[in-house]
Amino acid sequence: MIQSGKAKSVVNPTPSAPLSSNLSPAYRLDPISGNWTIFAPDRDDRPEEFVAHKEVFDQQLQCPFCPGNEQQTPPAVWIGRVTDDDSGTEIIQPSDETEPNEDWSVRVVPNRFPAVSECPPSVGGEPSKGCFAGGPIHGGHEVVIESREHVQSVTQLDLAEFCLVFLAVRDRLRFWRDQPNIAYLSAFKNVGSRAGASLRHSHAQVIATDLLPPPVGATVDRMNHHWATTGCCLQCDLVRAERKANERIIWQDDELIAFCPFASHLPMLVKITSVRHQARFEDLPESTLDSVARLVQRVVAWIEKLSPGAAYNLCLHTEPPSPDRGSDSFHWSLELFPRVTQLAGFEWSSQCMINPILPEIAAARYRKCARAEDPRMLL
Amino acid sequence: MIQSGKAKSVVNPTPSAPLSSNLSPAYRLDPISGNWTIFAPDRDDRPEEFVAHKEVFDQQLQCPFCPGNEQQTPPAVWIGRVTDDDSGTEIIQPSDETEPNEDWSVRVVPNRFPAVSECPPSVGGEPSKGCFAGGPIHGGHEVVIESREHVQSVTQLDLAEFCLVFLAVRDRLRFWRDQPNIAYLSAFKNVGSRAGASLRHSHAQVIATDLLPPPVGATVDRMNHHWATTGCCLQCDLVRAERKANERIIWQDDELIAFCPFASHLPMLVKITSVRHQARFEDLPESTLDSVARLVQRVVAWIEKLSPGAAYNLCLHTEPPSPDRGSDSFHWSLELFPRVTQLAGFEWSSQCMINPILPEIAAARYRKCARAEDPRMLL
Repeated sequence: MIQSGKAKSVVNPTPSAPLSSNLSPAYRLDPISGNWTIFAPDRDDRPEEFVAHKEVFDQQLQCPFCPGNEQQTPPAVWIGRVTDDDSGTEIIQPSDETEPNEDWSVRVVPNRFPAVSECPPSVGGEPSKGCFAGGPIHGGHEVVIESREHVQSVTQLDLAEFCLVFLAVRDRLRFWRDQPNIAYLSAFKNVGSRAGASLRHSHAQVIATDLLPPPVGATVDRMNHHWATTGCCLQCDLVRAERKANERIIWQDDELIAFCPFASHLPMLVKITSVRHQARFEDLPESTLDSVARLVQRVVAWIEKLSPGAAYNLCLHTEPPSPDRGSDSFHWSLELFPRVTQLAGFEWSSQCMINPILPEIAAARYRKCARAEDPRMLL
Repeated sequence: MIQSGKAKSVVNPTPSAPLSSNLSPAYRLDPISGNWTIFAPDRDDRPEEFVAHKEVFDQQLQCPFCPGNEQQTPPAVWIGRVTDDDSGTEIIQPSDETEPNEDWSVRVVPNRFPAVSECPPSVGGEPSKGCFAGGPIHGGHEVVIESREHVQSVTQLDLAEFCLVFLAVRDRLRFWRDQPNIAYLSAFKNVGSRAGASLRHSHAQVIATDLLPPPVGATVDRMNHHWATTGCCLQCDLVRAERKANERIIWQDDELIAFCPFASHLPMLVKITSVRHQARFEDLPESTLDSVARLVQRVVAWIEKLSPGAAYNLCLHTEPPSPDRGSDSFHWSLELFPRVTQLAGFEWSSQCMINPILPEIAAARYRKCARAEDPRMLL
């Protein structure tokens, strides 16, 4: 299942000067999200009175994700196992008889504290309107327990194990997109309390909802519009432009590219996507999923090197399954970002982010990490 | 300048049952921001492995906001003083001759690390288009130093001092809205590192920009549309509906109302606005500004009581001064919210918040604080 992969094309042999010489605040527009970000590199030099602190853990808490505690979670809906020869893997379809199954490497369970009501709806409920508009939201919320070990970082997982995680996410996304009325699929990782995690044991989450969040709908509309008016995918066009500009690319091969996007709304954000057009993450072939796993593990290692102890998130964007929006104009991507800044009053008021680190600077830092790891990558 | 104010109308004498009995996740739409929030009250019961910690401060840092360190900031653009009789105040128009002036109670200075370039533009710059759209952003970024004392909480300020802060904000908003090309005004407070503060000394900030952030433009459009189609202000309609529902109101008198909005995007968020229609905060009469100062001080005390040690933000929404949008359809408001949850992967991916605390529950907690403070308020 795992293939050895090397960077096949070498980017940025003669990098152009990053924009570090121009430190005046400027805004940049992300054509996919439609959001602006203000880049204010000087703000990174502010004096800081609050001292960064290390996370403190509740040592009494019995981790519900550790082996032996399977009874603390609902029964698994997906089980994957790294086989004895240590490179093969197998997927088990759990049944009530096999659960709780203590022989697993990666285990997907329903979240005990779901953000959405159980799907299919057990009780009907019509959305209300007027000043108090709203209604029930149904779907699924699952936890992907990524390892038997009580470790926080995916860099501590065997690659075979971490490839299984991506297979689990793919399978659960496929499951949910086939359920009636599912309109949105989300898969993500929260690592560290500042990234919204409540437990340390390495895990990811999948949420499927029967309603499409309006900002995601607006993104889909933007990508549909670009496709309809230019005949091209907006993300493919952006990747082409980033490759041409050659200022923000960290790593690429024939399949995947990792870069710090021109309008990164958060500092040190890395976007990973496929070089060729592909709307849905869950339709990627297994070999590409393995390459994604390997690349994510490397990016996390770079984040941990550049921002030691920082919390971080990983967010997957894949085409929403809503039938009336089904088209090929979407293009999946993953975003990874350390949580090194906080949303403050201006950001909450304006919904416009202030980013103190230019993506050109961020990409150069990541490239340095990649070079230190593999001197053959003359990035 | 300060008037004694009491709650003149008593709300919620017989509060209806809050929605605590219905803990199924549901979404609610904020008609002003256009955003959804998912309420998932069960999630507040999740086990938490990360232990909350107290802020640690860099004791070596010489605070640039303390008296005697005026040289560490740019010269003041506004100075206010509580006069000797301890209830009067005076405002000094600073000049190069009077600065650095060491005789101040509240002092407004340009931010040394601005998020926008100096206004008016010294160098022209046209926005770029295509995949890499963006351009310069000009305006002003100022810090309101709220006290001579190195204290973090506004509850430690004399009321006369805190009323001066609101006068300072009003005057600086008026100054900036009269500058050419200013399209957006923001005033806010970040308290604590989780709220984005880098310094502890009590301060607020004012940012004016020559570009209107698109989400704010969309809010203005929504309010204009509501005004045009119904002849009413959307915020006035919402306040009327909240008063009628009588489930989320914390406090009100003839002038001001404080409530937890139906679709609060963050837990324990309090919105303060005027009962009567008023588009612009900076057009409020001085007596109302004093009432706002008093109410904000009380809400902060409640936040500190309910979430000890929590960071919090205060955000002002006032009508953007852009000439082509000038109308009366906007309605100012202040939002205060402790930072008790973190944006996690789902929120970053979907731009849709998950809030584990229903505003009905939040309002009941705040009302209990208000009652404990003033038993005459039979809320």
